[in-house]
Amino acid sequence: MFGPKSHLTSRDSHLFMEDVDCFALAQKLGTPLYVTSESRLRENIRAYHRAFPGADKYFAVKANGNLSLLRIAAQEGMGADVFSAGELSVVRMAGIARDMILFNGNSKSSKDHELIMQAGVRMSVDSREELEHLSQTAQKSGLQGEILFRVNPDVSPKTHPKIATGLRSSKFGIPAEQVAATYQRAMELEGVKPVGLHCHIGSQILDTAPFAEAAGKMMDIAAAVTAAGGAIERIDLGGGLGIQYHPDSPAPTPADLAAAVLPIFKDRCRDLGISPKLILEPGRSIVADTTVMLASVNVVKRAHVSFVATDAGFNVLARPMLYDSYHHVVAANHSDEKAEETVTVVGPICETGDILAKDRKVPHLARGDVLAFLDAGAYGFSMASQYNGQPRPAEVLVSGSRAEITRRAEDASCLLTGQRILPRLMK
Amino acid sequence: MFGPKSHLTSRDSHLFMEDVDCFALAQKLGTPLYVTSESRLRENIRAYHRAFPGADKYFAVKANGNLSLLRIAAQEGMGADVFSAGELSVVRMAGIARDMILFNGNSKSSKDHELIMQAGVRMSVDSREELEHLSQTAQKSGLQGEILFRVNPDVSPKTHPKIATGLRSSKFGIPAEQVAATYQRAMELEGVKPVGLHCHIGSQILDTAPFAEAAGKMMDIAAAVTAAGGAIERIDLGGGLGIQYHPDSPAPTPADLAAAVLPIFKDRCRDLGISPKLILEPGRSIVADTTVMLASVNVVKRAHVSFVATDAGFNVLARPMLYDSYHHVVAANHSDEKAEETVTVVGPICETGDILAKDRKVPHLARGDVLAFLDAGAYGFSMASQYNGQPRPAEVLVSGSRAEITRRAEDASCLLTGQRILPRLMK
Repeated sequence: MFGPKSHLTSRDSHLFMEDVDCFALAQKLGTPLYVTSESRLRENIRAYHRAFPGADKYFAVKANGNLSLLRIAAQEGMGADVFSAGELSVVRMAGIARDMILFNGNSKSSKDHELIMQAGVRMSVDSREELEHLSQTAQKSGLQGEILFRVNPDVSPKTHPKIATGLRSSKFGIPAEQVAATYQRAMELEGVKPVGLHCHIGSQILDTAPFAEAAGKMMDIAAAVTAAGGAIERIDLGGGLGIQYHPDSPAPTPADLAAAVLPIFKDRCRDLGISPKLILEPGRSIVADTTVMLASVNVVKRAHVSFVATDAGFNVLARPMLYDSYHHVVAANHSDEKAEETVTVVGPICETGDILAKDRKVPHLARGDVLAFLDAGAYGFSMASQYNGQPRPAEVLVSGSRAEITRRAEDASCLLTGQRILPRLMK
Repeated sequence: MFGPKSHLTSRDSHLFMEDVDCFALAQKLGTPLYVTSESRLRENIRAYHRAFPGADKYFAVKANGNLSLLRIAAQEGMGADVFSAGELSVVRMAGIARDMILFNGNSKSSKDHELIMQAGVRMSVDSREELEHLSQTAQKSGLQGEILFRVNPDVSPKTHPKIATGLRSSKFGIPAEQVAATYQRAMELEGVKPVGLHCHIGSQILDTAPFAEAAGKMMDIAAAVTAAGGAIERIDLGGGLGIQYHPDSPAPTPADLAAAVLPIFKDRCRDLGISPKLILEPGRSIVADTTVMLASVNVVKRAHVSFVATDAGFNVLARPMLYDSYHHVVAANHSDEKAEETVTVVGPICETGDILAKDRKVPHLARGDVLAFLDAGAYGFSMASQYNGQPRPAEVLVSGSRAEITRRAEDASCLLTGQRILPRLMK
């Protein structure tokens, strides 16, 4: 029923994560609730280490910024791909070393550039224009930055258009044919030291061919840079490996990804006589399947279709509304029961688009039942909002029979944080 | 240049809101920044009062939950349409009276029902099933609820599918043909007192015909309920009036809306011999054009197209990404200058979909310039998130030459609120 998700089982018709009864947990802590399996997280990281023994793996923090999960990633030897000063501060707090952090981003301010150089972490530079800005800031402040260049490899990853980041038309990166000249320019500039190349072709990619294509293009560029006298110490192939959200859509494993890209990487490095560090930036494939989002059924409404309305909407889990994403749904307290009707699962938000799952076959459901949305660990809490006056939910880490809160649920008072009614309006 | 937006002017090529220089404000307080005109807000509310002198107007809080703005709405005699316990607590704090609040929602828990009855505010009931749940909760707790029924009038509002809420296929409301029987049922049940009907056909509607159609259908239902002995004391026609986001897409005014619906409402009430209170729930048309969102340009990248990358992305203003919405963009420190190039304005978020404005003609822009996104007062801050480790921005209220912070900007520490690293992971 849960495919390769060994951390999820059904016992007496209740969904268990490791040895924790998800329904009982929902009753105890309230819903909505994000619940993560520690063992699954560690297993997922180790699968990457086995597949890419020599490479550095930087966790894509945008997928999940939970401090305890980042701490586990640090313990397991992962670095971090960060995209903002906020993400940088969180991963530093989680104990990820400077040398294992890459600060990416297409829109960095002078303040960001200063902060990155002061923090002593590497960054990727997204454009020729950013390179010039950075060099000026570095000189003005007496700082120095080690940089990789974000390459736009013009590879189609066959994924949702909103998350296909390596197309020529996307906002990201330097067009492939301009990279060698930009590298040269960086070698002449003060305050910056070019050390490598970076790309990221998209997200939730279910075919390894685009990764192989991107790796080949990156090695072409590495060849051009090397020929022009540039030193390529690091090649970062980004992230984007998909996961199996739908029972009928299997995903490649890290080992499959390695089989597709490592031969290209190794052969071409050997041919060029270079030995750069390989870097990967997995996010979703590390964390998505570690986590379920639990929501309580408030009402089952039988109209022209049957609507199951829960206490979680796109404020809690935005992916279905944003990307038409599929999350498998299990009734946490009816997990062994046969499907009896087809329903649409909706949330409490005042928009028609607030649909979490469409046309799903579920057991007979009633007010008070709890639904588990599987594979909610990536782009789940990290995209949550307080829209419609909804406090954001708690996060829990499960290990064996332990379930510990890693992030407290917000309450209504959190909607007021930082707000005041201007005194002159208080009459 | 700014059409009917009298609160916005250009002076010496700087954008002013009332007597405040938006560029100077951005320099002083930092960006991203939401800035609202108090006079415009009051004018918009008064336009509704003039158009609908006898009706109650409930502000749709989901559009903007800023406490000071809600306080102004209260001062101007507005009530509130709320959709959650959180929104209820915020409008009560802003001083909106119980009798002027309607708690809507398709997914209320027993706890919500209790809280609403304890607070002594009316609610709309979305389904026959909810009616039964509510009555049970009322009886169990010894409470009583005054209710309106949310009607699904099956009207097509010709707007974005995600915000068309009155179609038969949407999750909202009781099918028109079942309302009279449900009303009857409510009259028999303990703990609930039916007092009227409610509908809401969608959002950003630029044609008054669907409102007239909905009003007609609501009066048909009122006739059926009345014939069956039900007392209709309140008819709530919801909100949804659009605004002019694009220079070429004019919007109807509250007066136009009144011209379309009031004759139907009045004639049919007279025919039926009833005199219910008319209620409207405007949100966007009250608050959208009061506010600009200011963002700083971090880099202008000239690739296959020219990208202007700012420090605000869909984390700050989600509408363009969610609904392909148009927000007019003005260079706050080049507001009189001629357009010189066509650009795509993007944010700092690690997704290709992070586009705020496409193919816009703008003056020559550079790092440090400030862009104003007009009409950002509705579904702007209220949909903001901390995605990609981005703290949420401040909100400012402008009145004459005064600019006062009503909500402080978050900082990176806000990403850690409520989080902890589990002690056992600290090794």
